[in-house]
Amino acid sequence: MKSYPLACLPERVEIYEVGPRDGLQNEPTRIDVDTKVEFISRLGDAGLRTIEVTSFVSPRLIPQLGDADELLSRLPHIDGMRYAVLVPNETGLDRLLSTGALSTGALSTGVLSTGATDIAIFASASETFSQRNLNKTISESLAMFQPVVDRALAGGISVRGYISMCFGDPWEGTVQIEQAVDVALQLLEMGCNKISLGDTIGVATPGHVSRLIASLRDKGVQTAQMAVHFHDTYGQALSNTLVALSTGVVTVDSSAGGLGGCPYAKSATGNLATEDLIWMLNGLGVETGVDISSLVATSCWMAKKLGRTSPSRVVQALSADC
Amino acid sequence: MKSYPLACLPERVEIYEVGPRDGLQNEPTRIDVDTKVEFISRLGDAGLRTIEVTSFVSPRLIPQLGDADELLSRLPHIDGMRYAVLVPNETGLDRLLSTGALSTGALSTGVLSTGATDIAIFASASETFSQRNLNKTISESLAMFQPVVDRALAGGISVRGYISMCFGDPWEGTVQIEQAVDVALQLLEMGCNKISLGDTIGVATPGHVSRLIASLRDKGVQTAQMAVHFHDTYGQALSNTLVALSTGVVTVDSSAGGLGGCPYAKSATGNLATEDLIWMLNGLGVETGVDISSLVATSCWMAKKLGRTSPSRVVQALSADC
Repeated sequence: MKSYPLACLPERVEIYEVGPRDGLQNEPTRIDVDTKVEFISRLGDAGLRTIEVTSFVSPRLIPQLGDADELLSRLPHIDGMRYAVLVPNETGLDRLLSTGALSTGALSTGVLSTGATDIAIFASASETFSQRNLNKTISESLAMFQPVVDRALAGGISVRGYISMCFGDPWEGTVQIEQAVDVALQLLEMGCNKISLGDTIGVATPGHVSRLIASLRDKGVQTAQMAVHFHDTYGQALSNTLVALSTGVVTVDSSAGGLGGCPYAKSATGNLATEDLIWMLNGLGVETGVDISSLVATSCWMAKKLGRTSPSRVVQALSADC
Repeated sequence: MKSYPLACLPERVEIYEVGPRDGLQNEPTRIDVDTKVEFISRLGDAGLRTIEVTSFVSPRLIPQLGDADELLSRLPHIDGMRYAVLVPNETGLDRLLSTGALSTGALSTGVLSTGATDIAIFASASETFSQRNLNKTISESLAMFQPVVDRALAGGISVRGYISMCFGDPWEGTVQIEQAVDVALQLLEMGCNKISLGDTIGVATPGHVSRLIASLRDKGVQTAQMAVHFHDTYGQALSNTLVALSTGVVTVDSSAGGLGGCPYAKSATGNLATEDLIWMLNGLGVETGVDISSLVATSCWMAKKLGRTSPSRVVQALSADC
């Protein structure tokens, strides 16, 4: 298909692939580490260059990612790749450091990755979710993250700050813009180089997205410091992404094949599917560096491993047997 | 959830509900006429006020709609409702007229509907599809439609002109903007009061949509004369709709529960789901007059009749047992 640009969009979008972490963490079927390594390798072959591969969360809480230590030691070596891992607290950071699979100093020296180059921490814009997810107030959680960030930065590792429930949560309903802005400013102040604005339950709509980004800019946050992270629970993820891109955001979180259900709704639909995003960006003539056919084949392969149909519209439309 | 407006959107959107026609026509399961009457009644109860209820196409070609005559005679009487029917040719118009279920003169006198107030004809922007679907060139098909339009207008019935395959088709790939514009201008010249820009195979992306609408405006077509009709085969329908609304279009075709598969792709996903559209519009503070909970319950009920899960993200997320 021919491409047709739209005014005010970036020339290139950086896709931050979360399938191996946010996707697999929410899939009921456990995937073995060999398959994960192959998955990550195939994602790299398709052209993805930023992948969040796992989380050093307690294996008791999320057994799907209990093999984080082994996975880190076996990450495929791919030119230009940035591997990120979620680190919930200092215990997680200690586990990550003990693997030795870190590209310390990668940021400043530009050497190729031989392990994780980035970590991510996971805060919340909703007090209720912070309490339920971390058993801490937002303020307590940020205090817990500070030494994680300090130690990572000291080791040459960059830190992304997720802000979950930026738009709404299942208990409070609409989350106020000011709450999300407040957490974002604290994470940036703490040393995060990017904040990911998360719509964890998929309730956001385009005006809300635009308003949050405008409010952040009003406080001096640049769009280059923002990523957007939408879930497609209510079918809004791609529209929300389009609006975010039109404001200048260039980093989009998505999950190959739409991996990852939603733990807060009876729905098989989780993260924005990377393929659906790329279909739109290809049509708009926005570069991603990703080959959609190769990615669809990978997602179809993974859907079979999980024993379920991919929720990605593009994967369903383009796969004859998936 | 609180609503957050976005600049350049209309205050109100007219939803042109196509579930009973475009939806059920593409569902393999046959629905009996009693259920169709109840379906239409429930759609009206949810607040929809323009419904395309059936097609007077040959029952041999589309047996799912073979009960058009009986259905027309049993349409529920709902205040302010406009019922439209697809009429493929003069034979179809004769069948429609023979039912006597017409609100002739409804347009000029403003009386309540006791039958169809509108008909729709179905043209194509793609020569190949026109040949395959109608066994006629585009030019021959327009000549066939002219007496249908003339007779309808003489009877006080307004005529909508569908243009299928406006963006791409399975044989030619990208359909040129000029082809769609050319057909649109001829349909308007012929007497259609509105043209529906159809992405029959769901391949369009937002820049293409914006460009087609701009090209039509350059030729003097007003956005009030346009409707958009997107299929969600590649997950693009809602983003495309958002862009169309931002240009001034106020009429959107959609299908309750996303009824209707795609005959040209191995995908259960057909029309844009009315619920997914309404979720976005509610979030944006754009009025539709439709109660989303009531509509979700109806789509869930219909999904059970069809023996399949609704492809609407909203229906899946909000229905505990659907």
